[in-house]
Amino acid sequence: MKNKELTQVGRSALKIDGRELVTGKAKFSGDFNFPNLLHGYACRSKLAAGYIKDIDISQAFKIPGVVDVILPKDIPGGNILGILPPYDQPVLAEKEIRYAGESFCLVLGTSVEAAKAGARAVKATIEPIVPILTIDEALAKDARKIHASGNITVSKKLIKGDSTKAFNEADIILEDTFETSNQEHAYMETEAVCAIPSGDDRITVYASCQSPFHIRGHIAANLNVPVAKVKVIQAYTGGSFGGKDDAATEIGSLAAVAAVRQGKPVMICLEREESIVGSTIRHASRIHYRIAAKKDGTITGKEIKILLDGGAYAAESPFVVMKALIHSAGPYIIDNIKVESTAIYTNKTYCGAFRGFGVPQVTFASESMMDELAKKLKMDPLELRRKNALKPGDLNATSQVFQESVGLIETIDKVIDLNRLYKLPSEREERYLYGTGFASMYQGISNGAEGIDVVGASVQAMQDGSALIGIGLTELGQGSRTVFAQIAAEVLGISMDKITIKQVDTDSVHDSGPTVASRSTTVGGMAVYKAAGEVKSSLLKMAALMFKTEENNIILKNNFAQLVFDENAKIPLREVCVAAYWTGFPLMNLSFSKAPEANYDQENTQGNIYVAYNYGTHMMSIRIDKLTGEVKVLKHVAVHDAGKVVNPKAFEGQVEGASLTGFGLAHLEKIQYRDGVIINPNLADYAVPTINDRIPSETISIETYNPTGPYGVKGIGEPPVSGAAASFANAVANATGIRFKKLPITRQDILKSLIKI
Amino acid sequence: MKNKELTQVGRSALKIDGRELVTGKAKFSGDFNFPNLLHGYACRSKLAAGYIKDIDISQAFKIPGVVDVILPKDIPGGNILGILPPYDQPVLAEKEIRYAGESFCLVLGTSVEAAKAGARAVKATIEPIVPILTIDEALAKDARKIHASGNITVSKKLIKGDSTKAFNEADIILEDTFETSNQEHAYMETEAVCAIPSGDDRITVYASCQSPFHIRGHIAANLNVPVAKVKVIQAYTGGSFGGKDDAATEIGSLAAVAAVRQGKPVMICLEREESIVGSTIRHASRIHYRIAAKKDGTITGKEIKILLDGGAYAAESPFVVMKALIHSAGPYIIDNIKVESTAIYTNKTYCGAFRGFGVPQVTFASESMMDELAKKLKMDPLELRRKNALKPGDLNATSQVFQESVGLIETIDKVIDLNRLYKLPSEREERYLYGTGFASMYQGISNGAEGIDVVGASVQAMQDGSALIGIGLTELGQGSRTVFAQIAAEVLGISMDKITIKQVDTDSVHDSGPTVASRSTTVGGMAVYKAAGEVKSSLLKMAALMFKTEENNIILKNNFAQLVFDENAKIPLREVCVAAYWTGFPLMNLSFSKAPEANYDQENTQGNIYVAYNYGTHMMSIRIDKLTGEVKVLKHVAVHDAGKVVNPKAFEGQVEGASLTGFGLAHLEKIQYRDGVIINPNLADYAVPTINDRIPSETISIETYNPTGPYGVKGIGEPPVSGAAASFANAVANATGIRFKKLPITRQDILKSLIKI
Repeated sequence: MKNKELTQVGRSALKIDGRELVTGKAKFSGDFNFPNLLHGYACRSKLAAGYIKDIDISQAFKIPGVVDVILPKDIPGGNILGILPPYDQPVLAEKEIRYAGESFCLVLGTSVEAAKAGARAVKATIEPIVPILTIDEALAKDARKIHASGNITVSKKLIKGDSTKAFNEADIILEDTFETSNQEHAYMETEAVCAIPSGDDRITVYASCQSPFHIRGHIAANLNVPVAKVKVIQAYTGGSFGGKDDAATEIGSLAAVAAVRQGKPVMICLEREESIVGSTIRHASRIHYRIAAKKDGTITGKEIKILLDGGAYAAESPFVVMKALIHSAGPYIIDNIKVESTAIYTNKTYCGAFRGFGVPQVTFASESMMDELAKKLKMDPLELRRKNALKPGDLNATSQVFQESVGLIETIDKVIDLNRLYKLPSEREERYLYGTGFASMYQGISNGAEGIDVVGASVQAMQDGSALIGIGLTELGQGSRTVFAQIAAEVLGISMDKITIKQVDTDSVHDSGPTVASRSTTVGGMAVYKAAGEVKSSLLKMAALMFKTEENNIILKNNFAQLVFDENAKIPLREVCVAAYWTGFPLMNLSFSKAPEANYDQENTQGNIYVAYNYGTHMMSIRIDKLTGEVKVLKHVAVHDAGKVVNPKAFEGQVEGASLTGFGLAHLEKIQYRDGVIINPNLADYAVPTINDRIPSETISIETYNPTGPYGVKGIGEPPVSGAAASFANAVANATGIRFKKLPITRQDILKSLIKI
Repeated sequence: MKNKELTQVGRSALKIDGRELVTGKAKFSGDFNFPNLLHGYACRSKLAAGYIKDIDISQAFKIPGVVDVILPKDIPGGNILGILPPYDQPVLAEKEIRYAGESFCLVLGTSVEAAKAGARAVKATIEPIVPILTIDEALAKDARKIHASGNITVSKKLIKGDSTKAFNEADIILEDTFETSNQEHAYMETEAVCAIPSGDDRITVYASCQSPFHIRGHIAANLNVPVAKVKVIQAYTGGSFGGKDDAATEIGSLAAVAAVRQGKPVMICLEREESIVGSTIRHASRIHYRIAAKKDGTITGKEIKILLDGGAYAAESPFVVMKALIHSAGPYIIDNIKVESTAIYTNKTYCGAFRGFGVPQVTFASESMMDELAKKLKMDPLELRRKNALKPGDLNATSQVFQESVGLIETIDKVIDLNRLYKLPSEREERYLYGTGFASMYQGISNGAEGIDVVGASVQAMQDGSALIGIGLTELGQGSRTVFAQIAAEVLGISMDKITIKQVDTDSVHDSGPTVASRSTTVGGMAVYKAAGEVKSSLLKMAALMFKTEENNIILKNNFAQLVFDENAKIPLREVCVAAYWTGFPLMNLSFSKAPEANYDQENTQGNIYVAYNYGTHMMSIRIDKLTGEVKVLKHVAVHDAGKVVNPKAFEGQVEGASLTGFGLAHLEKIQYRDGVIINPNLADYAVPTINDRIPSETISIETYNPTGPYGVKGIGEPPVSGAAASFANAVANATGIRFKKLPITRQDILKSLIKI
């Protein structure tokens, strides 16, 4: 697996699905069409909390084209959502409304318009309750319980060393509280599914989704049929960023129930407003952060309390709580840490996975504190980070040790160099403030503490020397299909044009869990690597017979099997494939990749959690217009150690995309509520970064070799979000001299603060 | 694998796909419907032979609804058919017409009617050639060559011992020539495909077919795209019997070419007439048979010349030639054999696979000769068969020896017993003739000499304890899905309602070759057995951890894991599945079953060919109406050694169905030509047996244990065809005293002969 003479891995191969995407041939769930297709449209609560007294559907049936209305009682199975315990969410609310936007029935029509008109005609009598809208209200002593279990979803601890002692002995103690807002995923394509009852007594669901296996399980549970009766195929998915995990289980279950009931295909495509109010958003947070240090800048202890506002249902809060917990102390050597991470129920839209998964929130707090500490110590902020940075062999926050592939210091050094070279505009105008911010971060790769991390992949070599790759992880725009194709092409010695990657289909690979945690390239890549390796083994055996030599004298390269020591002695791989088939060597393999298991003390969250970490340091230089508060990013450098980079262009795309999400979180995006109702549920009022807000990101890879990934890969999908968000906050502080403690730091916030000055 | 305490295998489980079939939910290819679906209808030659001078398609486009006409030049790839060398067939004839019914262009319309009207409007100028219509014409010295290679498709020899010597030293020599006619498969559902260009730059084809992997390869070759771009899914298939192997590659390729060209789904469903004239039929044959014996009935030699009329293209003739060659000497110990088996080209509909695959033709000849020999020797015909019958340890015609699972003598003994008990009507009426015929046969199981025999299967256990089975072999009505489900249920210890068998999908299993040669239960069953075994292994490991014991103390049974020695200590299997998933034991496996390879001298066809043989003896008693020639079958007993029977009810269905096909071949069915044009291409004029022709078959299984099949299984799909056909011929001879040497022996044939008497 050593990286000598790689021909495919490490190359900026064209995106394998690029052509169909740019030509419009790619079929998204909403593009499906079938005769007799029905459309589903949900009735949603306009109140944040209330008791359902009556749902009168009679008027809906008077609307031409309305064919059915699905109520909770019409769900044959458990009416259950939630991809992990406590499974506290219904598909359709039956008795109680817990957030504004929650569905309580689904109207089916022969057109979207009919279904929507039908939904408007449904008369719901909902008795209002005073909604619980803030963390404080939820935690108040006599607070109404949103769920029977109370208002705390889950709470976890991380304890390393003796933080009390560290704080007692500290030269310096800093303490502050940080907050972040909810963030909307704002994918180009909203959530969409199309469910088709198959003639073979099964149900097939095409879904714009992140985790087809989650959807499969939920559909079976809600239909009350064996899981084996349900087949989920991921249609092209126009972005997900974590958001099409929970939400797709909801509309997937609804569409399946409706389709089976009607015996007809049913499509549900959320409108933008539904997508914002009715599916997960990023957890808002409040983080209390204490830091203990020596005068020389050695950080000796941290005490952190994280409160995550998870909204009305648990969804993935238990995992986000863990991720925030584990990452909150940052990528530093700190002997004494005490963290408490808690998710809270409120009567707001429920929160779930979002690129970064709790890490951007804690990194913002952590890196703001680093800058404050540097300021207090009068140290260079990069030097402070460098001094405390994790190196190979160090114990991280969970006391996990990596002997290899810990490139944090190299990322800091790279930024130090760049910063030295970079000059903010020399002729600064009076009207503007200038500043540069830095942030270091790390992010665990793989499911880690979130449970077992397994991926299935299949590789089938054809008799014409082409190959078909299947994998249980989804392409969400991140380019993973291209990466998997490169890995398979590398192993099999074939060119990229011979590789086809199939749509994910739950029938054909092992349940691979969700496509999350920046794990695709590492754990998924390993599954492809192994499956391709088995097929390669068949091809080598056959070629050895054909060459009348030993297998280790043969390499597969450029669509040929050739002798190692005589590159002119070669046989086209398609001939080897034909011969292998007719000789009976298996040309297809289904492999199973299992990441080294997390093994830790669950009480104190100490032990081995992730298969690797991505490390990164960002630098962001900005210019602020004092008259308008307008911020212009002059330079953004994202330096990451993501192990071996399979596709530099795709890597760059991931870094740029994630950085822009971080920038949006830090500067632009804010879900706004009034009485628990989102008042900006559209892309006019909710300021998601557009192409005009693009920041001039520069991507630098510090390649290390990660032994747990094929060819030494790690992952890059999520980490830059945290780096960009935190470095932005530090840049603003550097430019204005004001420490903003709440994200987003909007133009208005900056302007208001400057005027106060 | 020993058969102790089987709970699923050996039980008449309900047909797993029965419900959707009888409720009409099952979707056949022709049931598919998509927006913008186009229909293809081919223009076919009305001449048996000719040169294509001009195809004028201009008038077709004037028909409303006609959108395109596909000519040979519009096929991007090779315009090639033929599932094995010499690949001598075009998808669309370009220069020469070789049989009446051959397609030369495809008209696409928005409706079937439009396409058909368009096809009528195409003006083809075809210069007639004198067609070659018989074996003798084809073999005549100066005969026109139908193909450049000549008029002999393929010719093979089998030589064992010294037949010349045997004949020189024989006490008795008998010699005769037998003929058989073409036979139409006459499935309920005609050939149909639906091709859909996928959004992911692939093409998906739903097909009523027998060998989706053959179709996949042909589509790729004709589209000129990598095989990995093509996905073929077997739709429900309403019968095949061998006939939907070649034909489906033809219309599959055409539909795919049209669909890609138009960017729209394209359906082609053959009309009954097209299905008869334009797709394969059973080879007509002429067999010259010589037999040498001693006075005591010991058969010492055979010399056989087989001529198969294969029609215009090779199709599967090379394999049918082999099968006829290998089986022609019958299931007897014969030391000296010389066989020549040859397929001929003629200007008639091309011939291919048909249940029995050459064996019914040679068995008719062989078993007719056995009766004639018995008559000559004044021996009881069953005693003669018994005397010469193969036993374990004997060398068969190819000198292959089976030490186990050779139950022929038991089948003969069973028939001897039954015949002793059975009395033809005691008060025979003057008007009727009565007779009883016997026939013994054997048929090789697996591809054998036809090449490697490999099958892929996948088994996926779900977290709710259900399981999804995939396999590369097709369900054609024979009940193989049920058999596979029973094997998987047996291995996993789960009930049948938890098992789902998926439609065959070329993406998801290893290329499993064609579903032929009665190999599904044996080789396919072994693949399922192995895949399920791997999953079982995961479940046992998990259960052992849960029980804190060793794996071998645990059995999986009735959806529970339980302790061997305490059946009250049990854990629901679904809980074991959940735990296994989260512990990281693979719950899915893709297995590969490879039959022991044929290993033989290809010059003389001596060596190990098949993994096993099915043996059988049939008895048929008939009554003939002397005034009308009408034949009534009074009793038919089919005794077979098919190894372990997985599903007795399905077994019975297979025997009854195959016997009726044999009866049709022997008595009713005859493709009739005039000037090379089939004049009875419909089910009114072509007499396929209907429910009214059903014969009162009685099925008896002599179970042996075949070590090459899971649980000792062999196969039963084809063998009874030969037994029924040959025993019918012998019954007619017994009743009338006249030896008919040509099949079918119709009512008219019998009447004519009786009148002559």
